This record gives sequence, structure tokens and C-alpha cells, in this order.
Amino acid sequence: MSLVAPVTVQKVSGEFLTESPDLLAVEEPLEIRLGFGPTDDRQQRALSVTMRTPGHDEELAMGFLFTEGIIHQPTDILSCRHCVQDAAKEGNVIRVELHPDVHVDWSRLERSTFTSSSCGLCGKATIEAVMALTPGPVSSDFCVEAGVLHALPERVRETQRAFAYTGGIHAAALFDASGKLLLVREDIGRHNALDKLLGAALWQNWLPLDQFGIFLSGRIGVELVQKSWRAGVPLLAAVGAPSSLAVQMAQEAHMTLAGFVRNQRFNLYSEAGRVVIQQSVLS
Amino acid sequence: MSLVAPVTVQKVSGEFLTESPDLLAVEEPLEIRLGFGPTDDRQQRALSVTMRTPGHDEELAMGFLFTEGIIHQPTDILSCRHCVQDAAKEGNVIRVELHPDVHVDWSRLERSTFTSSSCGLCGKATIEAVMALTPGPVSSDFCVEAGVLHALPERVRETQRAFAYTGGIHAAALFDASGKLLLVREDIGRHNALDKLLGAALWQNWLPLDQFGIFLSGRIGVELVQKSWRAGVPLLAAVGAPSSLAVQMAQEAHMTLAGFVRNQRFNLYSEAGRVVIQQSVLS
Repeated sequence: MSLVAPVTVQKVSGEFLTESPDLLAVEEPLEIRLGFGPTDDRQQRALSVTMRTPGHDEELAMGFLFTEGIIHQPTDILSCRHCVQDAAKEGNVIRVELHPDVHVDWSRLERSTFTSSSCGLCGKATIEAVMALTPGPVSSDFCVEAGVLHALPERVRETQRAFAYTGGIHAAALFDASGKLLLVREDIGRHNALDKLLGAALWQNWLPLDQFGIFLSGRIGVELVQKSWRAGVPLLAAVGAPSSLAVQMAQEAHMTLAGFVRNQRFNLYSEAGRVVIQQSVLS
Repeated sequence: MSLVAPVTVQKVSGEFLTESPDLLAVEEPLEIRLGFGPTDDRQQRALSVTMRTPGHDEELAMGFLFTEGIIHQPTDILSCRHCVQDAAKEGNVIRVELHPDVHVDWSRLERSTFTSSSCGLCGKATIEAVMALTPGPVSSDFCVEAGVLHALPERVRETQRAFAYTGGIHAAALFDASGKLLLVREDIGRHNALDKLLGAALWQNWLPLDQFGIFLSGRIGVELVQKSWRAGVPLLAAVGAPSSLAVQMAQEAHMTLAGFVRNQRFNLYSEAGRVVIQQSVLS
């Protein structure tokens, strides 16, 4: 299972073409299934298919189940493994056995549901399902110096195994108040990288992550704020821009949101007090 | 309905902080619903919720229905409009009435399906559903000069209304062999920008797009190749890196795939013959 795959590429520069070997970020589908009941009469149900970079699949599955609100703690999982009988899929199916006490609300998870309601109600349940799963505001005395955020892009980049080769893979990193990196996960999908990171943290029993920040290599959509909020993260920082809804949710969550973290600059969109800055020129 | 939203931001540079107004890319959920039956007894069913930048919602819905293989031509749609009775959702629910002859295979669309099969079969149907919907290889005599591709990033950037303000929005553009831009669509999501573009092209009755190329502002995952393939596009170019599976699918599709299109350079991963280059130094 490799993060990168070799390819022969025709490189064009201006009007010159050369052929040379190169490396690509690997992308393959992963199907997450839930299993129930006695092992001799296994019922199972497909939960989702995500395009991901292979590796840390168990963490991805656990992080996905956690951020979707299906599991809440490591003991909710009895086992999590690749379907070994399915050799043709080459490790692209993972099966999670949940504790019998875990209730799965399939109706919430299904994206297609029949209704005969009038338009007055239409969409409400579904849109609100997207916005649900949000706990109370984050309460944490976590704070960092500005220099810690300035140093993150370079520090994370140094640990990224695949990015340097392919230029096409995202990272999610967990750091403490001193800027020390505790975990870094890579994936072609931003959501997957964060799910892998949160799945690993869940499995280590580190949740809630109220004394840690998370750094992302891309832009910040609302789902990334939501996932981080579920894990109790007080500070989310990213190289890219946040969306309007990401800022709105971060404000509701009392989560510090920093965007455009690069070249010794960043923007703070909420809860700026958790970042210690020596000189303020509030205009 | 605006592509950008104002925000007050704390800008940090080194150890200096200033407060100033800024703009964010707007992100809101859009629920796409399908309607059936007589209007006095409307049955409807939610198909998907996507986080998107408002605007061109009808095109997004049509492009999504087309790239998911639900519709094939403009006449498959009887109507497509926002749910006006649902004021609380502020235009975030769109309802599409399909022609009675359009068969919707809900079982394929559902992401959750019960099975009691052994692991020997597990996942096969679902993973193959992701890879399905691929027509035969693209057959087209479309070709462009290298200079057309070199010029695309700047040309598309000039047309992007929202990117310049927010630094956080993707574009998809349709261009012809001379490099002329016929359509540009923007969205916070790469997939949505492409769905909007393809929905607009479908509605104009331009499909198959066998005499056009598509340019994307981000990276190239396999779904973007798949969507373009569905529309018969012979050349897909992007500012970012392709994934391994994107390259594999482009090769199967006989589609020209160009990545890292920026700074007068690009890489060709398949069907390089559609790009005319003056000097080749094949090593």
C-alpha cells in the first residue's frame, strides 16, 4: 500500500516537450461497511464509499464514524479490519463491528428518503441533518503564540511523505500549545486526512482534544469545522481560505479559526484571544 | 444571492495585528429533490445535499443529475426551480420534475443498502457503482496548441468574479480549440463548479462536448475525469495535480489529461497527441 504511484509524463515547458518519470498521489475507493450480529450469520450494510489515499484505513473508518456521530468512544468498536476474503478489491473494503449497544440511526444516514410533504417542509430534515451533530461551544483555555502558527506550514511540510513527490496531497496535523506535532495524516481528500487524524486520536483515547490545535493544508469548508468541533478542538488553522459558513460555525462553536496561514501571516476569523500576539494595531 | 460575504478579520503579520474588513466565499447547503406525479398530489424525494456557493443552482442540479447518470438530455427535465414555499431555507432547496419516461434507479443512488452476503461479494456493487457510468472511449479530432493551455490560467482568472476577492473559490471553464472561453462557473467545491458548467452546457444542447476542452482551477480527482468523460470532453486541463486513478481513467477514456498547468508549463498524462508542441526532446 503506497501513497504514491509511478507514471511516465510528457513535461511541456513553453514549446519544449520532454518525457520523464514522475509520481502521482494514489487515489482508490474505500467502502466502509458496518457488521452486526453473530459471526456465523453476518448481516452487514454499506455505509459509504469514499475516494481516499490508501493507508490508515482503520483510522479513516473510525474517524468517519465518529465525525458522522455514529460512535462516540473507542469501546463502541468491537473490530475494524479489511475484508480479507475480498482479494479482488485489494484492501478497499473495510468492515467495522460495532458494540451491540451502539444505535445506528440509518434514516439519518440515508441520503435518499421518500416524503410526500408539501414544500413547506421540504428539505428541512435533510439540511438540518447536515448542520446537526454539533455539541455545545468549545470551552478551553488553550492558547498559542503567533510564532507557533507561523511555523506550522513548514513544520508539517517536512513530515509529509507524499506531498514532496506528487504536489497533490493534503495533510491534517495535531499540534500542542508549544507547536509540537503529535500526529500528521495525509490523503488526497481534505476530509479524509482530517477523519484519519481524528480516528487516530479517538483510538488513542485523546478526545476531547481541548488542549490541541489542528492544522490543515487546504481550504476550510464547513464540514472541516464541524468535524473538528465534534472532537472538541479549540483552534483550527489552515493554509487556505475559509468559507462563509465555516466562519459562522466556528463563531457558534467558540472555536479559533485561522486562515491563510503562510509566509509569516494569517487571518483570524473568530476567538482571536487564543492567539498571543505581541503588538496589536487595532484600526 | 452573492458569491461573497463580508467579514471583519484580524490580520496578523509577524507579530503585528490589525483589524480590517475582508470577503469570504459564500458556502450554503443545496438540497436537490426529485418530484413525481400530478402536481396536486406531489411525491418528492431528496436526492442529495451538497455544500455549494449559491448561484446557477439550476445548472448545478442539472449537471449533477447528468453526471450521476439520471438524465441524458434537456428534455428529460420538465421543470427545475427553487422551492418558493420554503422561505426559511432561503433558496437552498431546488426541485426538479423529471419527464415520466425517465427511470430513476434509486437502489443505485442509495449509499446505504442492506446485504447479508459474505465478504466475497461485499463492496463489489458499491465500488463498481462509483466506477460505472463510463461511456466508450472519447473519439474526437480536437487538438490545441501548447500556447492555448499556457494562456488558460490567466484568462480564466480574469473572468473569475469571486476568486480575486476571497482567494477561496474554484473555477471550471469550457474552451474551444482557439482558446476562447465559452463558459466559466465558480463554486467553493470543485465538483460543483464542474457540475454547473456541464449543466449549463447540457441545457444549451451542446453535448457531447467533443470539440471543447475543460479547464479546472484545482487538483484532478477521478470524479472530475468521470464527469468530463460523461460529457464527451476530449481534453481536461487543471492547475493542480491529478491522482493516480484520474490518470488511469483518463487513459481508459482516451481523454487528454494535463496537470500543473501554470507558469508556462504543464504535464501531459494521456493522449498527448491532442496538444501541438513545436519542439519535442523525447529522452
